[in-house]
Amino acid sequence: MSVTVVGSIAYDRVRTPFGERERMLGGAATHFALAASFFDEVRAVGPVGDDFEDMETLALRGTVTEDVERVAGGKTFFWHGEYGWDLNTRETLDTQLGVFETFDPKLSEASRQAEVLFLANIQPDVQRAVRDQCTGARFVAMDSMNLWIEIARASLVKTISGVDCVILNDAELRQLTEKPNLVSAAREVLNMGPSVIVAKQGEYGAALITKDEYFSLPAYPLETVVDPTGAGDTFAGGFVGYLAKNPGEYRTAMAYGTALASYNVEEFGTERVVRLTEEEIEERVQALEGMTRLSISV
Amino acid sequence: MSVTVVGSIAYDRVRTPFGERERMLGGAATHFALAASFFDEVRAVGPVGDDFEDMETLALRGTVTEDVERVAGGKTFFWHGEYGWDLNTRETLDTQLGVFETFDPKLSEASRQAEVLFLANIQPDVQRAVRDQCTGARFVAMDSMNLWIEIARASLVKTISGVDCVILNDAELRQLTEKPNLVSAAREVLNMGPSVIVAKQGEYGAALITKDEYFSLPAYPLETVVDPTGAGDTFAGGFVGYLAKNPGEYRTAMAYGTALASYNVEEFGTERVVRLTEEEIEERVQALEGMTRLSISV
Repeated sequence: MSVTVVGSIAYDRVRTPFGERERMLGGAATHFALAASFFDEVRAVGPVGDDFEDMETLALRGTVTEDVERVAGGKTFFWHGEYGWDLNTRETLDTQLGVFETFDPKLSEASRQAEVLFLANIQPDVQRAVRDQCTGARFVAMDSMNLWIEIARASLVKTISGVDCVILNDAELRQLTEKPNLVSAAREVLNMGPSVIVAKQGEYGAALITKDEYFSLPAYPLETVVDPTGAGDTFAGGFVGYLAKNPGEYRTAMAYGTALASYNVEEFGTERVVRLTEEEIEERVQALEGMTRLSISV
Repeated sequence: MSVTVVGSIAYDRVRTPFGERERMLGGAATHFALAASFFDEVRAVGPVGDDFEDMETLALRGTVTEDVERVAGGKTFFWHGEYGWDLNTRETLDTQLGVFETFDPKLSEASRQAEVLFLANIQPDVQRAVRDQCTGARFVAMDSMNLWIEIARASLVKTISGVDCVILNDAELRQLTEKPNLVSAAREVLNMGPSVIVAKQGEYGAALITKDEYFSLPAYPLETVVDPTGAGDTFAGGFVGYLAKNPGEYRTAMAYGTALASYNVEEFGTERVVRLTEEEIEERVQALEGMTRLSISV
């Protein structure tokens, strides 16, 4: 059994109020794999250029990288961004697609056999091409972003209709459905086909919405947040990775995703998660259980 | 035993995307009293003008109005505001202080004997004058707003240092402390003297922070929010009212505050809460327990 993730493998240049990195390993597939590999075998799919030097870090904790396509003469996807003083706003200063410009994913037989698939944030046509190759997947989750809602909405809705779980920021859910109310927005996305919606709410946590259930979990409270880059993908990695091993255990999966994301933001890029231990994850999952427990005394 | 609340009793003119009211009963003390009176006897303190016609509604569920001062020749506090499409932003179009301009609270012996006191959002000097009259109070909570942080910060900090519990929006906590991080901001306010901080987070719910504890509760998810006016004061009424009867039961009190606030926003002003039943409150408190329960299966 394994989890296949398709998405960006990147270098990021990031500045936050707490420092900067000129060039650090990043990308949605990278953050997802580093988190999900705590729970199950992960197979990463995505292109890199000649300049990519971090395959070992990507392969940490057993992630299979045989479907990471190294494009001769190409450059690895590069993102340059800067965060505002409270880390809630960020500005993209530069995006160089590089090898992503012509990315046409061809999955190995093993990656196509994965029972669980995560379509990280890439062009929705490409997401669908991958989804169609993975005919045996019993659970498919996906991310997206405002750009695709704006320029490729029809394709995005088609992709959404073919997955089980949509993981989006609450602002993206509102934008996609043009409904300011989160519950209404989630209900509309459920009507497109998926059975589970996860609304990421940044520092406020995340909500899980199904046809019959609403579950909300706060973010793990931190005094020091250094770099939010990759938090959403780390959350998705913990959430989907846990579900791969524990099908249907959505609430606990939310706690694992939340715990992993909380470590991710404590340092730049992948720096904290690469040396994270299972014990540390368990510690925060237990803490989350304590800080949300509502013992009704009536 | 009773709860004394001092604050505005007002008429509001409000427009939201779902309709408008030219003149409806409002004010912090009003919303607080209508919620807290489900749990304990409430004594309301505040001035009204000759034009005030809603004493009966204020007195619903037993609220004692003998300290509501009717100022001859005066006009009741009036607020006019309009909400944006997603109800998260609002613009104040007019504020007429009326009788509030010269408000000098003199509490009756009974109001001063209250064991629990809530200082709703008014000028911090006035809050302190009231607080000093209530020498026997064993639990004092307070609200405030951005205006006082901007023009009366020193006085506000002095008021904060004399209460047990501060209930503020998270943005106000950040503004007050100039710390973008909520946990750090709350810790700084705890250092001013209070032992409990409640950070209201609007549609995301609320967090309770003490020296040793962090507790977070989402808002009750609603598909239809008609008018958020008074939600914070209704929350405070449920929270403080429950605590008056159940000292120290902060988490359950948060659930009651949240449940009451969720009803408040379903209709304009006080319209929903005036006909609310105990059974309806219990229903949502139980639902909140269900939608936050995290059964860790490890």
